[in-house]
Amino acid sequence: MSPPTVERLAVIGCGLIGSSVIRAARAKGAAGAIAVYDSNPAVRDRVRALGIADQVFDDPAAAAAGADLVIFAAPPAAIADAAKAAAPGFKPGAIVSDVGSVKQAIGDALNAAAPPGVFVIPGHPIAGTEQSGPDAGFATLFEGRWTILCPRASADPAYPAAVERLSAFWRALGAQVELMDERHHDLVLAVTSHLPHLIAYNIVGTAADLEEVTQTEVMKYSAGGFRDFTRIAASDPVMWRDVFLLNKDAVLEILGRFTEDLQALSRAIRWGEGDKLEALFTRTREIRRGIVAAGQENPEPNFGRDKK
Amino acid sequence: MSPPTVERLAVIGCGLIGSSVIRAARAKGAAGAIAVYDSNPAVRDRVRALGIADQVFDDPAAAAAGADLVIFAAPPAAIADAAKAAAPGFKPGAIVSDVGSVKQAIGDALNAAAPPGVFVIPGHPIAGTEQSGPDAGFATLFEGRWTILCPRASADPAYPAAVERLSAFWRALGAQVELMDERHHDLVLAVTSHLPHLIAYNIVGTAADLEEVTQTEVMKYSAGGFRDFTRIAASDPVMWRDVFLLNKDAVLEILGRFTEDLQALSRAIRWGEGDKLEALFTRTREIRRGIVAAGQENPEPNFGRDKK
Repeated sequence: MSPPTVERLAVIGCGLIGSSVIRAARAKGAAGAIAVYDSNPAVRDRVRALGIADQVFDDPAAAAAGADLVIFAAPPAAIADAAKAAAPGFKPGAIVSDVGSVKQAIGDALNAAAPPGVFVIPGHPIAGTEQSGPDAGFATLFEGRWTILCPRASADPAYPAAVERLSAFWRALGAQVELMDERHHDLVLAVTSHLPHLIAYNIVGTAADLEEVTQTEVMKYSAGGFRDFTRIAASDPVMWRDVFLLNKDAVLEILGRFTEDLQALSRAIRWGEGDKLEALFTRTREIRRGIVAAGQENPEPNFGRDKK
Repeated sequence: MSPPTVERLAVIGCGLIGSSVIRAARAKGAAGAIAVYDSNPAVRDRVRALGIADQVFDDPAAAAAGADLVIFAAPPAAIADAAKAAAPGFKPGAIVSDVGSVKQAIGDALNAAAPPGVFVIPGHPIAGTEQSGPDAGFATLFEGRWTILCPRASADPAYPAAVERLSAFWRALGAQVELMDERHHDLVLAVTSHLPHLIAYNIVGTAADLEEVTQTEVMKYSAGGFRDFTRIAASDPVMWRDVFLLNKDAVLEILGRFTEDLQALSRAIRWGEGDKLEALFTRTREIRRGIVAAGQENPEPNFGRDKK
């Protein structure tokens, strides 16, 4: 095994993603030592019991102390306070990053908390399942997935090398790394992740509220398409609340377009315009073929992992 | 193996579902002989080459002739004409059924075509994949899935026994059978299948039309939720066009509620009402748990089968 890409890793927030980072770093030998903090005492106890980290701290600054890489994996809106609390522990030259689904707001929060001489490089691994908590993580979660890093404007000549070190860390965990402007990241993810979750949450809510169709019937006959939405709509409520609040502008922009298109589709159904429907459905089928051809589909997609 | 539930089975329309019925009937010994017709000569040739049926006819009435059970598995809107063309072959006492996702309109079409002395019992197996064509079928598609039968009002005292014979056939194919009023079926399926497909088609179309995000980016970062929608949006365009046109009223009713709920959600995001978002997301998570607990989720769902 090659030498670790970071000597000491600190993970602040240890749910599905945080615990997967830890497990992957350990499995790949990507970190010499791993320190953990979580704001929830029960999670800290559980991480201790799981034995997946070298040290579990009751204080975020103590967990961050001496770390070459500090990764915040708390819910997006909790990162600002977590970073403020951990900042006294940041050592000069440390890389401060995160795994949140929104990059502009979190980047600003990390930047506000970090003292000079620390490299703030927000990040986002495009991977997950609908499970949450430290038990839900697994070492292969990032295998073959993309991790997007959003370097910030920096006058420090050492910044590019820090970005390269963080890239190497994610590659060691099995991910492919892409650099992207944070504003663009938030728009891309609004399309490929935030809106899909929003409408999945919405349809499951709509179905639950019907008077004429029982919840039992909805569950029983969910194999016709609905079931896939329920899986997405089972994702962590707090994390997703934060995503929509912190990426409000991009989400509302994309949602507006979606709604406009849906109204056109509704009108086509009402007026029996079968040719319009068929043309759209044929076009979307081509897009799917592009995704399969691009190798972004697995026979057993990570996202869809079901643990019974 | 027990004796076949039907002596002679005719399948009119041989795509994903039709060819799966044939394969399952043969694998389970549920039919003594199997006759097939498809309106597409290339499909007929392909079915001959696959060797999955006993006889492939170039004429629907010839395929239906002498059959105890005739199952229409053509696209929903094509069934009316197919039934008219096949009707001269219906033998007295034959069961005439189908596999379409809409039951009221198809039931009316079958009824209009069938002569007296024939038992019209519309049906719908809740199973499928995003693939289509005779090569896409497989014998285990209906295993553990629900098939809904929608018996019609009938003065014939032999009708209930015919419903029981058709139920036995589907159970022989591995399905669980439920009887349901056709109007209610169309409403339940509008929720659990038609609306999910409509919004999946819609979001994939919306994503394809964005100027600021490239199609390559959408595909590359689709693991965050979007990918599941592309699979659904790859379903057969003609079949789905027909479903929306034939189940217009129920689809527009459910779509109206979905849109109303989505606007409320949009407003909650705009005004930063995190508590409302979290409450919905927590509720939808519970519904998912109900589906998993009800055993309607498999580790590898049939619907999501990906063949690369």
